[in-house]
Amino acid sequence: MARIAIDMDEVVAELALKHLEYYNRDNEDQLSWSELQGKKLWEVAKSKEKVLEYFLDPGFFRDLQVMQDSQEVIQELQRHHEIFIATAAMEVPASFSAKYEWLKEHFPFIPDKNIVFCGDKSIIHADYLIDDNIRHFENFCGEGILFTAFHNIHIEGYKRVQNWKEVAELFLS
Amino acid sequence: MARIAIDMDEVVAELALKHLEYYNRDNEDQLSWSELQGKKLWEVAKSKEKVLEYFLDPGFFRDLQVMQDSQEVIQELQRHHEIFIATAAMEVPASFSAKYEWLKEHFPFIPDKNIVFCGDKSIIHADYLIDDNIRHFENFCGEGILFTAFHNIHIEGYKRVQNWKEVAELFLS
Repeated sequence: MARIAIDMDEVVAELALKHLEYYNRDNEDQLSWSELQGKKLWEVAKSKEKVLEYFLDPGFFRDLQVMQDSQEVIQELQRHHEIFIATAAMEVPASFSAKYEWLKEHFPFIPDKNIVFCGDKSIIHADYLIDDNIRHFENFCGEGILFTAFHNIHIEGYKRVQNWKEVAELFLS
Repeated sequence: MARIAIDMDEVVAELALKHLEYYNRDNEDQLSWSELQGKKLWEVAKSKEKVLEYFLDPGFFRDLQVMQDSQEVIQELQRHHEIFIATAAMEVPASFSAKYEWLKEHFPFIPDKNIVFCGDKSIIHADYLIDDNIRHFENFCGEGILFTAFHNIHIEGYKRVQNWKEVAELFLS
């Protein structure tokens, strides 16, 4: 049995599509999904400020789509491993309640005691961390598993999973 | 340099005195501080429910007194060690914002990235955990330091600090 910590945004919660849609709508821009590949939205947008302001709205995090297959795979993972959700919520304090409520709605089978809101993920004591941001792997005590997201497609040097089916293959086979 | 994780309630935030005062006021009871020694409030109160209902009110956590000397000592500790606040906030999801705002007010020198809201503290990767509840030490990877509180005075078998001056002696001398 391993202890696996799992990030939220872009791993179990689909944030980027909504973010791009809202940004284009509010800023009369027409950034396409393909322009975003390998980059962060704020790197290609008209202004970083306009991109980040959505994170100040707690409601923004409340109705995100669930990442495909994540619910089924995590439930199965729980039968063999210890599963924690570890999200850098401290970066967006306004998001605490929305993120918690979202988890309760879509992942009711994850107990409260297995949810962690942190900032620096080096504080997480786990064997694996599934995350789309490699900066969280730097001082992490276990092994980082890079979950593919639009912004990280060119990054090399990490074990990578493309989707939740691949997470299942990695930890359940 | 060590990494030291520090609990909030009864360690940097004085919760018990307010809790007893509110409980007595609202339930026409006259429990005294001396009756509480070695016990939890819900063990001696008329009903556990009445004791726990305060935790459902977010405001309850917002105006707690700061534990004596904790601010000065933690600021000094930061010069020599890596300091994290680790609170089992998931036990009281309504408390997220109040606890965060309280920390920002009284401990503005602790960066967001060093704040952790968790449930099971075995997820904390640190060398030391200063806490008033020994249950958090059970599966903790480092050493637990028991911070004296009314309810734990009879517990033995752990390194104990009576107050923040003793924390300073332990980690700064």
